Amino acid sequence: MLMALSTWQEIEAYLSRSTGIIVPIGSFEQHGPNGLVGTDALCPEIIANAGAADRDDILIAPTFSVGCAQHHLAFPGTITLRPSTMIAAMTDWVASLRRHGFRRIYFLNGHGGNIATIQAAFSEIYADDSFSTDGPGNEAVKMTLRNWWDLSGIEKLCLEMYPKGHGSHATPSEVSVTYFAYPEAVKSASMEPEIAPSGPIRDAHDYRRRFPDGRIGSNPAQSSAQDGEKIVTAAAKALLDDYESFLSAT
Amino acid sequence: MLMALSTWQEIEAYLSRSTGIIVPIGSFEQHGPNGLVGTDALCPEIIANAGAADRDDILIAPTFSVGCAQHHLAFPGTITLRPSTMIAAMTDWVASLRRHGFRRIYFLNGHGGNIATIQAAFSEIYADDSFSTDGPGNEAVKMTLRNWWDLSGIEKLCLEMYPKGHGSHATPSEVSVTYFAYPEAVKSASMEPEIAPSGPIRDAHDYRRRFPDGRIGSNPAQSSAQDGEKIVTAAAKALLDDYESFLSAT
Amino acid sequence: MLMALSTWQEIEAYLSRSTGIIVPIGSFEQHGPNGLVGTDALCPEIIANAGAADRDDILIAPTFSVGCAQHHLAFPGTITLRPSTMIAAMTDWVASLRRHGFRRIYFLNGHGGNIATIQAAFSEIYADDSFSTDGPGNEAVKMTLRNWWDLSGIEKLCLEMYPKGHGSHATPSEVSVTYFAYPEAVKSASMEPEIAPSGPIRDAHDYRRRFPDGRIGSNPAQSSAQDGEKIVTAAAKALLDDYESFLSAT
Amino acid sequence: MLMALSTWQEIEAYLSRSTGIIVPIGSFEQHGPNGLVGTDALCPEIIANAGAADRDDILIAPTFSVGCAQHHLAFPGTITLRPSTMIAAMTDWVASLRRHGFRRIYFLNGHGGNIATIQAAFSEIYADDSFSTDGPGNEAVKMTLRNWWDLSGIEKLCLEMYPKGHGSHATPSEVSVTYFAYPEAVKSASMEPEIAPSGPIRDAHDYRRRFPDGRIGSNPAQSSAQDGEKIVTAAAKALLDDYESFLSAT
Amino acid sequence: MLMALSTWQEIEAYLSRSTGIIVPIGSFEQHGPNGLVGTDALCPEIIANAGAADRDDILIAPTFSVGCAQHHLAFPGTITLRPSTMIAAMTDWVASLRRHGFRRIYFLNGHGGNIATIQAAFSEIYADDSFSTDGPGNEAVKMTLRNWWDLSGIEKLCLEMYPKGHGSHATPSEVSVTYFAYPEAVKSASMEPEIAPSGPIRDAHDYRRRFPDGRIGSNPAQSSAQDGEKIVTAAAKALLDDYESFLSAT
Amino acid sequence: MLMALSTWQEIEAYLSRSTGIIVPIGSFEQHGPNGLVGTDALCPEIIANAGAADRDDILIAPTFSVGCAQHHLAFPGTITLRPSTMIAAMTDWVASLRRHGFRRIYFLNGHGGNIATIQAAFSEIYADDSFSTDGPGNEAVKMTLRNWWDLSGIEKLCLEMYPKGHGSHATPSEVSVTYFAYPEAVKSASMEPEIAPSGPIRDAHDYRRRFPDGRIGSNPAQSSAQDGEKIVTAAAKALLDDYESFLSAT
Repeated sequence: MLMALSTWQEIEAYLSRSTGIIVPIGSFEQHGPNGLVGTDALCPEIIANAGAADRDDILIAPTFSVGCAQHHLAFPGTITLRPSTMIAAMTDWVASLRRHGFRRIYFLNGHGGNIATIQAAFSEIYADDSFSTDGPGNEAVKMTLRNWWDLSGIEKLCLEMYPKGHGSHATPSEVSVTYFAYPEAVKSASMEPEIAPSGPIRDAHDYRRRFPDGRIGSNPAQSSAQDGEKIVTAAAKALLDDYESFLSAT
Repeated sequence: MLMALSTWQEIEAYLSRSTGIIVPIGSFEQHGPNGLVGTDALCPEIIANAGAADRDDILIAPTFSVGCAQHHLAFPGTITLRPSTMIAAMTDWVASLRRHGFRRIYFLNGHGGNIATIQAAFSEIYADDSFSTDGPGNEAVKMTLRNWWDLSGIEKLCLEMYPKGHGSHATPSEVSVTYFAYPEAVKSASMEPEIAPSGPIRDAHDYRRRFPDGRIGSNPAQSSAQDGEKIVTAAAKALLDDYESFLSAT
Repeated sequence: MLMALSTWQEIEAYLSRSTGIIVPIGSFEQHGPNGLVGTDALCPEIIANAGAADRDDILIAPTFSVGCAQHHLAFPGTITLRPSTMIAAMTDWVASLRRHGFRRIYFLNGHGGNIATIQAAFSEIYADDSFSTDGPGNEAVKMTLRNWWDLSGIEKLCLEMYPKGHGSHATPSEVSVTYFAYPEAVKSASMEPEIAPSGPIRDAHDYRRRFPDGRIGSNPAQSSAQDGEKIVTAAAKALLDDYESFLSAT
Repeated sequence: MLMALSTWQEIEAYLSRSTGIIVPIGSFEQHGPNGLVGTDALCPEIIANAGAADRDDILIAPTFSVGCAQHHLAFPGTITLRPSTMIAAMTDWVASLRRHGFRRIYFLNGHGGNIATIQAAFSEIYADDSFSTDGPGNEAVKMTLRNWWDLSGIEKLCLEMYPKGHGSHATPSEVSVTYFAYPEAVKSASMEPEIAPSGPIRDAHDYRRRFPDGRIGSNPAQSSAQDGEKIVTAAAKALLDDYESFLSAT
Repeated sequence: MLMALSTWQEIEAYLSRSTGIIVPIGSFEQHGPNGLVGTDALCPEIIANAGAADRDDILIAPTFSVGCAQHHLAFPGTITLRPSTMIAAMTDWVASLRRHGFRRIYFLNGHGGNIATIQAAFSEIYADDSFSTDGPGNEAVKMTLRNWWDLSGIEKLCLEMYPKGHGSHATPSEVSVTYFAYPEAVKSASMEPEIAPSGPIRDAHDYRRRFPDGRIGSNPAQSSAQDGEKIVTAAAKALLDDYESFLSAT
Repeated sequence: MLMALSTWQEIEAYLSRSTGIIVPIGSFEQHGPNGLVGTDALCPEIIANAGAADRDDILIAPTFSVGCAQHHLAFPGTITLRPSTMIAAMTDWVASLRRHGFRRIYFLNGHGGNIATIQAAFSEIYADDSFSTDGPGNEAVKMTLRNWWDLSGIEKLCLEMYPKGHGSHATPSEVSVTYFAYPEAVKSASMEPEIAPSGPIRDAHDYRRRFPDGRIGSNPAQSSAQDGEKIVTAAAKALLDDYESFLSAT
């Protein structure tokens, strides 16, 4: 069930069934010569929709689509929030959701560079409850972060598919996921070296010097829509299990 | 040309052709008994895509989808940023776009409640250049805001379609636009009174007391996908003219 | 009744009669060759004082005198707040007034460039109430913004007085208002062209290039203290009606 | 020379004569049973105007009229900024003045409770220059803070006038200054005890418990317009000397 | 070489030898019945000092001693920064160090709860360089984060020492490190159950319900000064290797 | 009793005996040719520990060791917070301490440049209580600031010891205090002139031009560990009296 395509009365009715919600969260940033700028926002959105768009007991929030990508700013198309801005924005999103009675908020993340800031935002939000002597009472909220590639079985699947050149940025698995969902956007590009170099991530100038075409450790020329379909199918299923566990955990 | 579905190299090539970009900007908020929570984000996105998705001389940024909707918070599904957060986020978006060489940024807005904060954000961004004695030089950026209903001819068209009960929130025109694009999400709901009351907008508690089902002055039961198509067609054309004027203006 | 010249006990007594207050709000910025830097702060202050300084049922707050004027920074004498700073300052002002029991706060504005940020500040302030499940209860506050030139009949009067060259910045009407109140500060200056150019407002460097002497579309050489008196008399009367309506509205 | 009543061209001309400016800075807060809420903003404004309104080599900025008065919030009429807001606002004021070429900024303060935050704001502003390896070069600015009662000879004069019950808040000297300038606002009120108690300043609730009518250590029933005239005359003269020293110091 | 005990001239001389610095960073928070509140700040400080206090080619900054510990606030003695405050503070620290010419900043961390915010702070700091078209040039700074327990061989050593009940908060290894350095502060306390429960970390109220005496998964009754000595000796050595690698890496 | 070396249960027990706490607060900044960078943090820590480390009715918080030192940034080793950052950090510290039941917080300060910002932080913290109509009730907190050199008798003692060249920065008294506590860090350096110049404090570039070796008005060549011992002994005793008065005052 997609929040964007629901009425407030449908969401009110949903809240009588569940206080959980899935929030796809990503980034807008370069993904190498054949990867889409929107990859990190699209992947969790695609997987969440594949798993739960037709489930009336699971609500999918709009995608938090621009995240922390300062290190990619030397490549056109990257849009980033500063971490402090992202914390402020996530704080407002969660305050809005709590206002309506959501109590279990599951962030399905598509970008490694978001992890630290998402967790910092959780602390920022929890801190308000923690500084209070009385505590949140029945307005207590539980938040969790899951990277889609950390869903059960997914990393293993990806590495089986791409034993060489999976890498860590502009990976063939994430590119494949977007190719599956947006076949009109499949790109072909020559890349050299076949497998991109690896190294530390610092500022954007340093990044572009180290990784001239944007990839890190990957060979996304291996990407295909068919592979993407396999990943999406497996990830959507794993997501449902993981989300269910989150809802039922104390 | 959609930024989300482009590679950084395609965007780099685009920048040699144009330094302009269209940013759809909306809100996530209740839209009455038969309007979608995502209406205000979807409308500018739909219109921008209808006009320019297949134009390689116009780039469409990701949609800034959550805006200023504090007054709708008493209805489930509304997500809002505080104005100060929205200013910070828009500042980061524009800084990112400037970094790549974008110099003309056209915000196509779908939410009346965003107007003040978008303009305040423009001032916040321009202020950095203005405080500097030297000025931005050739990094000067020009931003403009256009509400889609203010595109040439659109308000007139909408009022012709809906001479009674167009209203100002959850209007039949905006609902129709979403029904055209998302026919699977057409809703039917009984609404009473037929035309919703009007009044001032303050905090969310006051809002819900004044406007119990969320509509202001409107009768969106008149909405239809066919109407939406007419509006989108006209608005997409008007957008191209308006954007062209923006690019060519000094 | 002027807050500045009252004791706290007089204000406490006032609050038993009324919970309303008028806050003149302006800007400090260049106003062309013969307009005063303080014009936009002085005009609402002059009009409010003319209407209500001797009324013990209306309280006039100190003037919020420096607002959003980044676009005038290329002209000496302009002082501006960033929009984010202005939102923070207005938030503190309103929190102070609420603390004492003020519940209806009427901002009489003298600067077009303030409008967006004032409205954004209202949203920022209301948001705190809106995020709360319980709501503000009997601490709910109502704020409104009125530009003095939008008071009933005033724009018509000004355009009758100055059918040519009223313009939108450094207008003969606002200059006349200050000349009436500060006859010692009447200036004479030659201006060329007689009627200044018009155009968009962006950063301060762009502004000065477009509007070399600071005026937009106006010929303030037409200003006079006598004209100012007529405007002040009419605006003061219209203000009382408008403020009365604000107090009595639900 | 009053900035509010000058044109930008007059200020531009002034800057060729001097890069100094006097900024009266005060507070809006209760001043006991017969003191005006505006006292702390009015006093430095009155003294600055008495000394320099007719001097074309000294420019007086608009009064920064609302400062740090959280401790007075339990008395109606008090308006305060949080210290962090005041720092942001002062930062914007000083950035505006520097933009035009002002290099020596003299804050004439009317409120003891402002001192710490004004000095913190100076550090905040200087810090930007200090973090820079290159430094401000010829854009370096010098700021100073002077409380009007610390001008040479003034404290001595006040204590001679009021050997008993001068106190530290709602003093007869500051009340007299306002009575001199605003004779129409002279108040009479019975106060008991004659001399108010003294003690520490903490939050507003604590303050009102300790100081039930708002005064600290003072007997402002001794105030008179005549006394005010003497103080203003002496302070205006002392201000000119002190400001001259500030301008000529390295 | 300890910065705290050096003169500025000694540090100036150091900078001609090295542009690297080690910053111990910790937290002030409960550490169960027999662990010290200062544990997480003390451990990296102890290890850094053991490794490098007598090395004139390594400079140790003051310990950033209070970090992100909102989840421990239900236990007396915990002091925390909000993540947004910690980001601001780290930004100022790094700006100070860069100002002097430090270019390689190595944070030796003692608290798992700091990791996300430290990394977010790195992004916040790098972002300023990344948004700039020109980049930092030779003022580019490289920052890294190392948890002391992730130094080579340390986790293995700790798990060998404490095959049962090492856990993740109030671990016997960290308690032992402090006992070694502060033998006067060795505590004895009975704990039940012997090994504390495990679970997720959310707000402070939730935390105390889950972990009534503060420990997570650990049995710190096993702690001893002798064990601490072994850990410190090994960690100090591993730190030198790791820091050396950081300095020499491109 | 040192918070760093206590368990949470010991602190919980302490809170049943006292709700007071001493927080040493300092700065990290150059202290001339023979003074330690850590001087201003070390001095209050040394004095607090000398007075109260072995008193189980007095708790000493961790040292807030980096403060406001922007003016020293032109000398290597200085680390500073911006005043706005320091206010945020102190706000979080005090909120943490209040959470546990501390109600009397005594800041023992070692740096003149901190005074303004500490007091501004107090106002920022109190403001939250003051804006509230209900007030803090029994969660009201009392904060005070004491510079160690303002403890009873200490300034007199220091001036007797150093009748010439005590000065105001890098004083022989503060250097002696650190030499007493850290005899291994005694430095010898030639300084010229014997007594450093005096002058105003502005930005760091201006500071280094005025005070080339960092000292202001002092001759710290007179420093010795023996002198330090006398000062520490006297100050520790005076601290206990002053803290006792603070606790017992209403």
